[in-house]
Amino acid sequence: MKILIDGMGGDNAPDEIVAGAIAAAKEIKDDIMIIGKEDIITKSIEKHGYYGSQITVIAAEEVISNDEAPVKAVRTKKESSIVKGLSMVKKGEADVFLSAGSTGALLAGGLFILGRIQGIDRPTLATVYPVIGKEPSILVDTGANAECKPNNLFEFATMGSIYMEKVIGRENPSVGLVNNGTEEGKGTTLTKAAYELIDKSDLNFIGSVEARELPNGACDVIVTDGFTGNAIIKLTEGMGLMVLREMKRRFLSNTKSKLGAMLLKDQLSGIKKEFNYAEYGGAPLLGVKGAMLKMHGSSDALAVKQTIIKAIPYVEGNVVDTIQNSVLEIEEILISE
Amino acid sequence: MKILIDGMGGDNAPDEIVAGAIAAAKEIKDDIMIIGKEDIITKSIEKHGYYGSQITVIAAEEVISNDEAPVKAVRTKKESSIVKGLSMVKKGEADVFLSAGSTGALLAGGLFILGRIQGIDRPTLATVYPVIGKEPSILVDTGANAECKPNNLFEFATMGSIYMEKVIGRENPSVGLVNNGTEEGKGTTLTKAAYELIDKSDLNFIGSVEARELPNGACDVIVTDGFTGNAIIKLTEGMGLMVLREMKRRFLSNTKSKLGAMLLKDQLSGIKKEFNYAEYGGAPLLGVKGAMLKMHGSSDALAVKQTIIKAIPYVEGNVVDTIQNSVLEIEEILISE
Repeated sequence: MKILIDGMGGDNAPDEIVAGAIAAAKEIKDDIMIIGKEDIITKSIEKHGYYGSQITVIAAEEVISNDEAPVKAVRTKKESSIVKGLSMVKKGEADVFLSAGSTGALLAGGLFILGRIQGIDRPTLATVYPVIGKEPSILVDTGANAECKPNNLFEFATMGSIYMEKVIGRENPSVGLVNNGTEEGKGTTLTKAAYELIDKSDLNFIGSVEARELPNGACDVIVTDGFTGNAIIKLTEGMGLMVLREMKRRFLSNTKSKLGAMLLKDQLSGIKKEFNYAEYGGAPLLGVKGAMLKMHGSSDALAVKQTIIKAIPYVEGNVVDTIQNSVLEIEEILISE
Repeated sequence: MKILIDGMGGDNAPDEIVAGAIAAAKEIKDDIMIIGKEDIITKSIEKHGYYGSQITVIAAEEVISNDEAPVKAVRTKKESSIVKGLSMVKKGEADVFLSAGSTGALLAGGLFILGRIQGIDRPTLATVYPVIGKEPSILVDTGANAECKPNNLFEFATMGSIYMEKVIGRENPSVGLVNNGTEEGKGTTLTKAAYELIDKSDLNFIGSVEARELPNGACDVIVTDGFTGNAIIKLTEGMGLMVLREMKRRFLSNTKSKLGAMLLKDQLSGIKKEFNYAEYGGAPLLGVKGAMLKMHGSSDALAVKQTIIKAIPYVEGNVVDTIQNSVLEIEEILISE
């Protein structure tokens, strides 16, 4: 398998990207290609003391920044790591593309270069949602589509279930729809209509879930529009950071508490680890004709390494084909409306 | 001042309501009236060993449950604690009504019995949003309006600012609009249009805020639609509960960690206290012609006590009149569109 990673994307590029790739190379046998400004990437690889052949560099001399208008950037910067990287997936020169770069440019690139799977109206970003002490859920959509129609949520539910089953390996994953109550009649025009569609499908639909239950692992596949999904994933992250910071501040307040914290070192680092998004790998863009994983902009070497390793089951799971095959079922239900 | 509390509402009625009222009576001089089934409330008061005159019972022999269709319940159950309680506020027989009962019935009652302030399209539930280690924010809307128009968000911003200033006493409170990014051009049709309206006003508008920043106290008044607001408040609550439970589970895992937890007892209970919604009192329904506070359904005696005490500045702050006076400014901006 050929794994292609964007050497120019994210806050910590290229050094953390390169360090993550080198760390991953020690654990997997697959080829890793780093795409970006050849000079910079090569120097970073040398700096890290790597001289193997498993990692190679692909030259792409343009960079798309986070400030650029995504569609225009993708249309004009043909030599950027994002455009060239996605084109390589399209041409079969790479099996999957990973990037911590501009979310907008990656979404635009996914749509224009890889292209939508026919029958899928809106591809979705699926993010692993950490559930402390349990297996994680996934959240669809986490920001690719701020405004959604009911059929979009139904598509997200279907694609999310496929990813959960094929890649994360959870059989017959439960699907929950984020709603402002679980009583009948609760919800917006959007959630009520989406509920009916998902309920008609063969998915393992457990109905509405309230945001309060998400940290307890309410369901395997959390379905919501991209605006709410964005708020959920960011708030969860913000709460995690705040809790860790607040524990640290309080626990270091005096000698007695410092001693207490020392005795709880293992437990505290266990909690910290579970709050660490880096552990969970990247977010696939589901519904496009190719494998692409979006990493968090602040990804460090650990996050990069994990995303590279988790890209393997994503490719092997044949998610793209499975989604393609599910389109017929989605259409049957939409047409029967 | 006459504070009227629903003795029949919430998971822990009537005993925790009564216990909270008795606890509050020790700290304030105002009259407290408990409304509900006379027999049950009176017995509960006796059980708690209270024989003073500061707390009185108002008979209301019907009860509206959480399962009932709110509008129908409010229309038909004239002798329910909610309908009778709100009617007493309307008639000036009570200054404020507090209830942990059905949110739907309270909202319907607020609209039909107290009535909207003329010029306010949609009243809003404003909930205190806890910010650990800092002063809390308030979140508008937290569930009264799942679907909103831009002018609604602008009204929420205005009413939330008034409440923050008049009741919580924070001068010139900062207002932030929940959005899926802070870059220009980010957002939905709704948030983009609401942004423009709020930006034209005299409010201290700091622009878009991301959900990640809310636990850090990003702004004093957090503005969003009721669907997103509901998700934010419930997820924050769920994360808090999960973190506390997970800390407990891990910290009690062995003798060494138990000792550590013992040394950190003060710090841990400090964190627990800040996560405890009970500390923050109830949520006012802003935009109706009367003072009403909705309490969490699971309110215990502490929450009841706090809500009763915090009802005083709410009434004294003259929020209803101030909102009434702000309507003209809101209308000027809406008309100039």
